[in-house]
Amino acid sequence: MKADLISIGDELLIGQTVNTNASWLGKELSSRGIRIVRVISISDDKDEIISALNESLSRSQLVIITGGLGPTKDDITKYTLADYFSTRLVLHKPTLKKIEAFFEKRNRPMLDVNRRQAELPEDCEILNNNYGTAAGMWFELNEKIVISLPGVPYEMKGIMTEEVFPRLGERFELRSLYHRTLMTQGIGESFLAEKIRDWEDKVRNTGLGLAYLPSPGMVKLRLTSYEGSEREGEITGLFKELETAFPQFIYGYDEVSLTVVLGEILRKNRLTVGTVESCTGGMIAGSLTSIPGSSDYFQGSFLTYSNELKENLAGVLSETIQEEGAVSHQVVEQMARGGKERLGVDLCISTSGIAGPTGGTEEKPVGTVWIGIAYGERVVSRKFLFGDDRERNIQMTVLSALNMARCEILGIIPEKK
Amino acid sequence: MKADLISIGDELLIGQTVNTNASWLGKELSSRGIRIVRVISISDDKDEIISALNESLSRSQLVIITGGLGPTKDDITKYTLADYFSTRLVLHKPTLKKIEAFFEKRNRPMLDVNRRQAELPEDCEILNNNYGTAAGMWFELNEKIVISLPGVPYEMKGIMTEEVFPRLGERFELRSLYHRTLMTQGIGESFLAEKIRDWEDKVRNTGLGLAYLPSPGMVKLRLTSYEGSEREGEITGLFKELETAFPQFIYGYDEVSLTVVLGEILRKNRLTVGTVESCTGGMIAGSLTSIPGSSDYFQGSFLTYSNELKENLAGVLSETIQEEGAVSHQVVEQMARGGKERLGVDLCISTSGIAGPTGGTEEKPVGTVWIGIAYGERVVSRKFLFGDDRERNIQMTVLSALNMARCEILGIIPEKK
Repeated sequence: MKADLISIGDELLIGQTVNTNASWLGKELSSRGIRIVRVISISDDKDEIISALNESLSRSQLVIITGGLGPTKDDITKYTLADYFSTRLVLHKPTLKKIEAFFEKRNRPMLDVNRRQAELPEDCEILNNNYGTAAGMWFELNEKIVISLPGVPYEMKGIMTEEVFPRLGERFELRSLYHRTLMTQGIGESFLAEKIRDWEDKVRNTGLGLAYLPSPGMVKLRLTSYEGSEREGEITGLFKELETAFPQFIYGYDEVSLTVVLGEILRKNRLTVGTVESCTGGMIAGSLTSIPGSSDYFQGSFLTYSNELKENLAGVLSETIQEEGAVSHQVVEQMARGGKERLGVDLCISTSGIAGPTGGTEEKPVGTVWIGIAYGERVVSRKFLFGDDRERNIQMTVLSALNMARCEILGIIPEKK
Repeated sequence: MKADLISIGDELLIGQTVNTNASWLGKELSSRGIRIVRVISISDDKDEIISALNESLSRSQLVIITGGLGPTKDDITKYTLADYFSTRLVLHKPTLKKIEAFFEKRNRPMLDVNRRQAELPEDCEILNNNYGTAAGMWFELNEKIVISLPGVPYEMKGIMTEEVFPRLGERFELRSLYHRTLMTQGIGESFLAEKIRDWEDKVRNTGLGLAYLPSPGMVKLRLTSYEGSEREGEITGLFKELETAFPQFIYGYDEVSLTVVLGEILRKNRLTVGTVESCTGGMIAGSLTSIPGSSDYFQGSFLTYSNELKENLAGVLSETIQEEGAVSHQVVEQMARGGKERLGVDLCISTSGIAGPTGGTEEKPVGTVWIGIAYGERVVSRKFLFGDDRERNIQMTVLSALNMARCEILGIIPEKK
């Protein structure tokens, strides 16, 4: 089964909104074996909507449209679709009740524009929206299906999960592409490709698809079988070979985040964790606590941006900062050791670096970062040299620190760069 | 001038990568008056690339293609374009030199796959890539321009900025759409629309475009003039009316983040800031320190996830936690006051809440968050009731806390909900 996605909204074309809906839909649909042929973004314009819809229907059996269903005057998708399918808008009482209940629950008065959202095309199936006021719509014409959903991501996801996927599952026998993805941290794309060249040649001969998906600090390796999950065992075996050879880089599978993996290791080993962060400004802690249930292992942190707080909170010696500078292995090691003791945790991660864009020197250019880990009796530290971009440097530091903590607990000695 | 964007990569269709390139390009091109007609994502497939390219060239004078230029075997864009434009690949020596220098600078050996990236189509203009090893390409045919760029965002952005925009500027007189966007926090889309109904009716009569762009915790209002910047003064005046009426919601213009706005207020008033965070786990500090130069005002934080650390670090009374619970106005007020004193800052933000998905009670359901601010002699706190989604609750708490701090310093009394 082939599908096109049409995302409607000027804000997508002028770049005010990133199209995360398309990626969520792509993931969910392809995991069910529906192949996305094309993703199209167009403006809130009647002619554009109709032309994109015609093209997509010529290509795909299923077309999912997101956006343009809001209560405000620039939202025209519902009216355009009613015209396209030659039907009229009528008051849909169950939707009106839902909208009324929605406002009642929030103890807010209901507005006319919201009431008008219950006027829906007569000849379509209405898809319940339990998260907002814009109902979804399911149209059919000549064995093709057109689904229209609100553009607000969590409303769209709710309707897809509760209304669309069950209906698709009833109607079609969905065959699946089978993907597995190996997650690596701490090695660049070309380097990884060089290290695994023999393995890659072997994979190419199996007819499995292989893709490298790089992002800052990480490379994902994806293997795809076009015969569903039949070759699951073979794919698992291929990835295991890499896992055995490069445990310092490979931390998990299938989009799992390093934060989740580290969290599971901490929980399994009944360890508590804290951080003493300078250049990452709380982003390591923020990453750890983004996981539900992280209060089982995460205790707390000192964010010591100023040197004074490095001394007062984490107990770094004033002389060390003066002699070695705040960005030095001595300072991150003292931060990690001090944090471990004063936060009362089993493992403490520390960071100090020059995130940029200013603050670099010849000796310590922008992008220089020291990461320290105190765990048990050991305190280790490692220097990284990232690039010129502040946001990227922080992100790379967070990932590298989480991976260092993982390796430290598991007893993996990182390869020298 | 009309443009189409074509993003190539299976990872976009199956949703492993979010298409941030398209939003960046959309923003940059439309600010220069180039109208994006359509954004298309397709797979790494020769026929798909050619078909999308034909369609886009029938619609737009400029087509920008991103992706598929990497060193690995799944990247076929270069070969497909060489075929499409009937040209052959030849070694481009300046690019080879750049690639060699790139590896030398990083002290890494150069690989064969990287060397092959210097083989480029003969009949195109080569666009320098100063950030990676895949050069960009500029093709022309029948007064239409096709530009091919790597999919790695910072490489693509570098080539656009340094190579593409200067060339476009030389060749075309770019006329501009004029946008301004008003940034609001703390009020929902429908509510905002209701509050500003009269203003909106007035705007609709001027022929200016108006759009509501909601995202969690925020709504952006965008006004568009189709006659370039001529109507700048009129737009500024219209927005000023709203700013005067709703200072508690309106914090800035044109995609500025609340973090930047608060940072500027802190710097202007020579104030220092710190945080004592529980449910936000460092994300307020992380947000503040994401801004270059934030070390001028941000000093540090206590992240007190455990009750023990709330007591030991921020000086919250054990009895208060036992009697009122950690999620209470008494506790966040003690956290803010304690943090202000112990971190030695002028303003301290504190948070305590139930981010979810578990941990809620009937009295304090998931989504209940208290935010405290200690500033000068004042300590204020406010209760919020967000939803069921952990990530969203944290994000909403960060935005609400930053806006509370802004209002507190500026002396704006938030309206009762």
